[in-house]
Amino acid sequence: MKIGFIGLGNMGNPMARNLLKAGHQLLVYDVIPAAVEKLTTLGAASAPIGQLAGEADLVLTMLPSSPQVREVYLSAGGVLANIRPGIMAVDSSTIDPHTAREVAAVAAKQGNPMVDAPVSGGTGGAEAGTLTFMVGGRAEDFERVKPTLAVMGKNIVHCGPSGNGQVAKLCNNMLLAISMIGVAEAMTLGAALNMDPKTLAGILNTSSGRCWSSDTYNPYPGVLENVPAARGYTGGFGAELMLKDLGLVTEAAKRVKQPVMMGSLAQQLYQQMCLHGEGQKDFSAIIRLYQQR
Amino acid sequence: MKIGFIGLGNMGNPMARNLLKAGHQLLVYDVIPAAVEKLTTLGAASAPIGQLAGEADLVLTMLPSSPQVREVYLSAGGVLANIRPGIMAVDSSTIDPHTAREVAAVAAKQGNPMVDAPVSGGTGGAEAGTLTFMVGGRAEDFERVKPTLAVMGKNIVHCGPSGNGQVAKLCNNMLLAISMIGVAEAMTLGAALNMDPKTLAGILNTSSGRCWSSDTYNPYPGVLENVPAARGYTGGFGAELMLKDLGLVTEAAKRVKQPVMMGSLAQQLYQQMCLHGEGQKDFSAIIRLYQQR
Amino acid sequence: MKIGFIGLGNMGNPMARNLLKAGHQLLVYDVIPAAVEKLTTLGAASAPIGQLAGEADLVLTMLPSSPQVREVYLSAGGVLANIRPGIMAVDSSTIDPHTAREVAAVAAKQGNPMVDAPVSGGTGGAEAGTLTFMVGGRAEDFERVKPTLAVMGKNIVHCGPSGNGQVAKLCNNMLLAISMIGVAEAMTLGAALNMDPKTLAGILNTSSGRCWSSDTYNPYPGVLENVPAARGYTGGFGAELMLKDLGLVTEAAKRVKQPVMMGSLAQQLYQQMCLHGEGQKDFSAIIRLYQQR
Amino acid sequence: MKIGFIGLGNMGNPMARNLLKAGHQLLVYDVIPAAVEKLTTLGAASAPIGQLAGEADLVLTMLPSSPQVREVYLSAGGVLANIRPGIMAVDSSTIDPHTAREVAAVAAKQGNPMVDAPVSGGTGGAEAGTLTFMVGGRAEDFERVKPTLAVMGKNIVHCGPSGNGQVAKLCNNMLLAISMIGVAEAMTLGAALNMDPKTLAGILNTSSGRCWSSDTYNPYPGVLENVPAARGYTGGFGAELMLKDLGLVTEAAKRVKQPVMMGSLAQQLYQQMCLHGEGQKDFSAIIRLYQQR
Repeated sequence: MKIGFIGLGNMGNPMARNLLKAGHQLLVYDVIPAAVEKLTTLGAASAPIGQLAGEADLVLTMLPSSPQVREVYLSAGGVLANIRPGIMAVDSSTIDPHTAREVAAVAAKQGNPMVDAPVSGGTGGAEAGTLTFMVGGRAEDFERVKPTLAVMGKNIVHCGPSGNGQVAKLCNNMLLAISMIGVAEAMTLGAALNMDPKTLAGILNTSSGRCWSSDTYNPYPGVLENVPAARGYTGGFGAELMLKDLGLVTEAAKRVKQPVMMGSLAQQLYQQMCLHGEGQKDFSAIIRLYQQR
Repeated sequence: MKIGFIGLGNMGNPMARNLLKAGHQLLVYDVIPAAVEKLTTLGAASAPIGQLAGEADLVLTMLPSSPQVREVYLSAGGVLANIRPGIMAVDSSTIDPHTAREVAAVAAKQGNPMVDAPVSGGTGGAEAGTLTFMVGGRAEDFERVKPTLAVMGKNIVHCGPSGNGQVAKLCNNMLLAISMIGVAEAMTLGAALNMDPKTLAGILNTSSGRCWSSDTYNPYPGVLENVPAARGYTGGFGAELMLKDLGLVTEAAKRVKQPVMMGSLAQQLYQQMCLHGEGQKDFSAIIRLYQQR
Repeated sequence: MKIGFIGLGNMGNPMARNLLKAGHQLLVYDVIPAAVEKLTTLGAASAPIGQLAGEADLVLTMLPSSPQVREVYLSAGGVLANIRPGIMAVDSSTIDPHTAREVAAVAAKQGNPMVDAPVSGGTGGAEAGTLTFMVGGRAEDFERVKPTLAVMGKNIVHCGPSGNGQVAKLCNNMLLAISMIGVAEAMTLGAALNMDPKTLAGILNTSSGRCWSSDTYNPYPGVLENVPAARGYTGGFGAELMLKDLGLVTEAAKRVKQPVMMGSLAQQLYQQMCLHGEGQKDFSAIIRLYQQR
Repeated sequence: MKIGFIGLGNMGNPMARNLLKAGHQLLVYDVIPAAVEKLTTLGAASAPIGQLAGEADLVLTMLPSSPQVREVYLSAGGVLANIRPGIMAVDSSTIDPHTAREVAAVAAKQGNPMVDAPVSGGTGGAEAGTLTFMVGGRAEDFERVKPTLAVMGKNIVHCGPSGNGQVAKLCNNMLLAISMIGVAEAMTLGAALNMDPKTLAGILNTSSGRCWSSDTYNPYPGVLENVPAARGYTGGFGAELMLKDLGLVTEAAKRVKQPVMMGSLAQQLYQQMCLHGEGQKDFSAIIRLYQQR
């Protein structure tokens, strides 16, 4: 299949490579020429957005945020003005559900099925082709795009109608941030009360406090190997990115007037962490807010 | 063994019954005569605290809070004034770690080993003999008391020196409250954004948001069977009790000057819930704060 | 002077009437015909936006939020496409500072001075002509527009360059929300601890807890007369409007990555209040979250 | 009058000096001999607590916290065991209202009127004799003690029955902490959005955001002279002391099951500040949590 791929950053680049490896033809576009070159040297062809959209059998986008998604899809020279009838569009950006739904509705109206398919799994998962895709759209569109996504990920989950991929991703990441901070508080408090961190983690992990942030990604140094806490909080999922997602989720909550007391506190704590210059660290480094400097 | 058991409430009563069933002799005491009678009709003998402490081969207490623990152990007619040399004391109350350590230190000084051994598992676990005991004390004391506790529970965990049973329990319950509220926010926000709750729970449970509050005790009605959310939030672990534990944990944090931003917000949200007359409901009913009345 | 006035809602209508009373000619526009009629019967002329902008000696707008401001100013048939060179525009809407700055920059580029001039004082102040105008723009533009604004308000304050009127208003309202909730907590806690509310308010008002929310707008019924608390929280500044401002301020904080821990909690508490159906009440009714229902 | 004064720390010492200056006879006691000496060189006599209580015409105490108040009043060699019938006791310590009420009830039962009379105004006010006394007790006891307190302070306020002096002080200080943090957030956000801090403070101080923390004690450097912010946050009211009061107030709220969402967040933010080694600074230095380090 000839796939048009727009957005070749840290995530898009390895995803595109996996599509090439699987034998797909690739038409690529990015605002940064160097990002494009990395893929043309591997056999992809370069094209401006309009031409790319007009030639592709499937359009895939991986963009930083909502304004870029609107621009790339809705502008005069954009995807929807140039895509052929019936061709499908897949947006893997993490954006707010309302924008996702609005853009998909415009696409649907002109006869182009569109799904939102944000990913989790980080750059590591993108390289290895083990991403999770959370897909929002009609069931038949999900089935149609599933094989292509399966080249880049290993869990391809249908989350319901348009926008629900974003909803699932944002709700998950909000809960992730909350439980990570909860683990950070429980671990530092336990240590301050003279409890051995490894023993404490062992108890949490077999009790009702059990969660991914404790048993798989514990932020307290020395509890687990091969996690960011074991290597100075490098690698992993950056705090700035978590803050971006928390900004999206509190914004989405505001639009539907749904309180998110803890989600909002989590956003503020990550904002504090970023203010203090730690935004490039893994998000589990939030535990450092709870430790003496 | 002749066991002295003080405190025969909702938890103590079934625990004492399991000791009787296992063939132990029981000397019991409670301020409420009816509670005592329930056990004497099953073969236990009744005795005032002083006599009980003087005759028992092991003293076990299950009391509502720190002042009662101080009173029962430290007063003139109390346990430590009457217990025989070398006899062990086990306090299964949930109290603050500092009081636990102080009382155990007094006991140790006069030659009586003492461990703190708070439980989790609720009245159901107490009936079934499947409680978890989190034990703080010396390793040899832990080994000595383990067989007796095993009659009442199935996980008997050594958490380190004196007081650490309390620390483990409080840290776990703080994390539990935080993740329960996090799940409540994620689920209600997802629903408000038009996502099917069961689908959302399924995604959280296989992603980084995974936690006990989501996969085992989900607060959103209709997601799981056999949880309080499936029966109007009856049964389970009452919000008032969770609030009590959050009071203990924030107090312990205050003493060591350790911030617990989320733990403290959790305490306040449970305080709100109790103010609004819902304190008798299961603690997962906190989700109702996030739903229109 | 011939003034073009766009946006004739609860605030705009009485403001426009005061301009008429002061002898100004008025060209008015609103999407709701009935709102227009109320003013044409008083002597104002009606005109579509383009014509209004082309004829007016000064354009004044009072719109619900940022998208409307963008639409009214920047669209093809909008103000900036039709306004005469050198004519000044004044936007009295409460919107985010970034949008205010962007629109003013477009205006400035084409030679039209523009200031943001959000108001405080409520519909009462609009009727009485006693509003406060917080003005962002160049000093000379402030001086030029001041006499006109003085017809509608009594405090006309220069807050610095473009956008700063919005910054001042949002920062003030965030602090207002925080101190109102603070007063609500202090008053209900005092009452729960058996202190007479009037005595407590008296002490706060002469101590370091003194604030406008306590000494001028106390939310506890019976403390002050002629405040919303004295009449079932009717009238005043609606909780929904406060929530809107808190949404703007946390959004503005997010853009500059500035933590607002309390501002964010205030937003969530107002979101809770609105969820529970009390959004139409005065914002001081937030105290009801702290009282048994 | 012969006054017995127990507790001669930073506050008690200058208060005692003012009583001497006013011509009272003084019997003093403190656990630190040097503190006693400072006053005996000025003419006070030293005595152990029992003798002091037995000879004094009025007993005044100024102690660090609740346990010391219990010890000094209730122990065998303490005030109440030795005080003469009808002699009055005044406790100026800042402690929790429940302890204040309990101790006063014991005193009342044996025929000794007792009032709680915590102070505000800091060491500066203690030196200058301009403290505020918030007095809880019977009206006739308030009148009786007022002239003596007037030697040390200039506002002597009756807050209602026993314990209400503490309630008033704690509620005020909670509101103070909340509004100080609110001002810190408003000022730093305004600055981050390019507003001049002095201009912003000027607007807040004449608008609905007006409060003591903004108009009298602004935490933003350069806004006011002669405040801690103008001298590196030295002097003033230490963050550790504010944290102590916030601990008392959240504890008092817990006992009556009253939510204090913002009060609790304030406590946590001061706990963060103290964790990061800034507890000795004035409490207005909380603003530094909101500024890049």
